[in-house]
Amino acid sequence: MKIVLSFALAAAAITLSTPAAAQFAKPEDAVKYRKSALTVMGAHFGRIGAMATGKVPFDAKLAAENADVVVAMSKLPWSAFGEGTDKGDTRAKPDIWKEPAKFKDAADKMQAEVIKVAAAAKSGNLETLKTAFGAAGGTCKGCHDSFRKD
Amino acid sequence: MKIVLSFALAAAAITLSTPAAAQFAKPEDAVKYRKSALTVMGAHFGRIGAMATGKVPFDAKLAAENADVVVAMSKLPWSAFGEGTDKGDTRAKPDIWKEPAKFKDAADKMQAEVIKVAAAAKSGNLETLKTAFGAAGGTCKGCHDSFRKD
Repeated sequence: MKIVLSFALAAAAITLSTPAAAQFAKPEDAVKYRKSALTVMGAHFGRIGAMATGKVPFDAKLAAENADVVVAMSKLPWSAFGEGTDKGDTRAKPDIWKEPAKFKDAADKMQAEVIKVAAAAKSGNLETLKTAFGAAGGTCKGCHDSFRKD
Repeated sequence: MKIVLSFALAAAAITLSTPAAAQFAKPEDAVKYRKSALTVMGAHFGRIGAMATGKVPFDAKLAAENADVVVAMSKLPWSAFGEGTDKGDTRAKPDIWKEPAKFKDAADKMQAEVIKVAAAAKSGNLETLKTAFGAAGGTCKGCHDSFRKD
């Protein structure tokens, strides 16, 4: 309980300034919320990826708009991994609650990298964006490999 | 087809500057995305509502943070109501595609009202926030009544 609470508070501190427990009426609401935030994040990250990989033409304004959504979404999911949200319609691994410091570290890394993606998009330099996108994508994969079931 | 395309372009114009059709690989991706954006929006709008209705103490900083997420989310769903996304795991009514101007008007109204909620939250005045929250909530309800199945 103490570890879970510490994690919840740490997660809340890096996102919005209220305890996670107060934010969701039911654990399933938290699960739905965090999946939704990650879905929105993934959609916009994918649109940047389409430019980074040359599938669509690079448009710095559009890349920046998408990156801003990614940055906003990157802050949200973490407070929704509170106590009792390890069950239900989720692929979250128990390691999230067993190794909260490691999970927080992965979440922090991702947030730091997507801020760099937004800066790169705003620079208007496609090569910079490619590098930042690759690094951010690596933090997605790293966290999924460690903390998400296949 | 022409009406659908016109709507898709109008919707894209009020959100991100790319045609809706280019944004989703499959119609079900669009459905999942728009529901996710609305779920995130609803969660944060609900947290403002808890303050507006006195269920939790008013915290202007927290209200403003939540309102900023609401405003960001309010721009997103509309481009995901493109052609072929009237089917599958959705409660969207056919009227969305039959009356695109009316739907766009409802979407525009909501976006205008949530901007007022954000301004009210930043004002730090709870009474102002209550008024703005009520008006914004009315636009949610209005659109759901007209365009969402029970």
